[in-house]
Amino acid sequence: MVYRLILSYNGANYAGWQRQNNAVAVQQRLEESLERLLVRPVRVHGAGRTDAGVHARGQVAHFDLADPFPLQGLIHGTNRSLPPDIRVLAAERMCARFHAQKSARAKSYSYRLIESPLLSPLDAPYAMALPRPLDLAALRQASALLVGRHDFTAFALAGGGHRDPHRRILATSWNRQGSRLLFRVVGDGFLRGMVRSLVGTLIEVGQGRRTVENIRWLLSGEPRSQAGPTAPAHGLTLERVFYPPGLRVARQGHAW
Amino acid sequence: MVYRLILSYNGANYAGWQRQNNAVAVQQRLEESLERLLVRPVRVHGAGRTDAGVHARGQVAHFDLADPFPLQGLIHGTNRSLPPDIRVLAAERMCARFHAQKSARAKSYSYRLIESPLLSPLDAPYAMALPRPLDLAALRQASALLVGRHDFTAFALAGGGHRDPHRRILATSWNRQGSRLLFRVVGDGFLRGMVRSLVGTLIEVGQGRRTVENIRWLLSGEPRSQAGPTAPAHGLTLERVFYPPGLRVARQGHAW
Repeated sequence: MVYRLILSYNGANYAGWQRQNNAVAVQQRLEESLERLLVRPVRVHGAGRTDAGVHARGQVAHFDLADPFPLQGLIHGTNRSLPPDIRVLAAERMCARFHAQKSARAKSYSYRLIESPLLSPLDAPYAMALPRPLDLAALRQASALLVGRHDFTAFALAGGGHRDPHRRILATSWNRQGSRLLFRVVGDGFLRGMVRSLVGTLIEVGQGRRTVENIRWLLSGEPRSQAGPTAPAHGLTLERVFYPPGLRVARQGHAW
Repeated sequence: MVYRLILSYNGANYAGWQRQNNAVAVQQRLEESLERLLVRPVRVHGAGRTDAGVHARGQVAHFDLADPFPLQGLIHGTNRSLPPDIRVLAAERMCARFHAQKSARAKSYSYRLIESPLLSPLDAPYAMALPRPLDLAALRQASALLVGRHDFTAFALAGGGHRDPHRRILATSWNRQGSRLLFRVVGDGFLRGMVRSLVGTLIEVGQGRRTVENIRWLLSGEPRSQAGPTAPAHGLTLERVFYPPGLRVARQGHAW
């Protein structure tokens, strides 16, 4: 039986989603908690890696289990032994062909910025500080150019291991509330470090240090060195993973 | 010379604002950092206590200093030795009669609630979880009754040490965004534990377990036992302290 978990975590204390040899990853903590609950080895598969320090509100992972297990028990039993900065928010039984990564059709990310040189400790762990306000109209113009299928080589961290640098961006948006800026992006997939490189480069557009047209040029497969810096990990949150309908097993009369 | 600091802190790791004998308070950490910077004993006076676990975005404190000190140096020098969950956001020179507590005319607080039994680790440190949605119209009706001068005995924690239980509430508001509820209240002063007791009691109105009219009755000096529970500290934030104009020393030509 295939189970899907929706997870949220504060990435501050983790080396990212994926298991590492010499640092604690979210995947490892989740597997340990599931193994404690289910009393057997469990291997979970995530919808995608998040880098060290990146947060998640709706990371998705799946695992296989020979016997059925009640969904509420799965949620609460796993949370009982997870550290408080990782939480299972939902559990569902999926059909056998569901795979958290391979079945995913799109992902959305958000990036938080605050136009202030000095952040409140209530914001600092989740947002990048900007010494001066950005030009919102320029940010929106440049971000609109990202929509569509492009070669994102200029925005991929080296060592990402991708074969094809093309990805399709479905939507972008920038919202300002007082000194707070929120960037949202939805795409069918993202290269390693891509959202943070996009944000770091868009900031230069918002600062007037790079033209909107330069973004169009970067999307024609320019090397990473032509784009801006990688924005810090702690401003980034994986918000949601989207799947096609029909992969969930319809609820039976009983609790799972 | 009197200096005013505006402070923000995450209250999670502190026994509240006020110095304690056997637990670390924000006041103590701030005094230690100022003493390290100024190399003399410093006693700061806060606009008001915040209880253990309560957050602040705009706590205000003042202290006296015989010699002038550059404001930017005060901000950055203090922050250098403060723990990252406390930050000085601003510093100003005030006229000699300024007193952070006695000069304050009003304070505003916010309280965050999320209508979900299970919170993301990104929200859990700052919001109270509600298993079921509340009746927003009832919350608004009941909160409107708070505005004006009332006897808030029913909402004061025992041991608050107040002489007069009357306070004037200037404004209240409730906002919902998805599953998030934000309560804001501005008043000329608050008894100990008052905002949290108000929230705990208003929640019962929002759950249909207490009538709007009951709130009116509580405001006639009923005992604490008649009101609802005290909502958890971590949902509460001291947002801002208001002062009359004219207490600030006009900026001189130099840096302080």
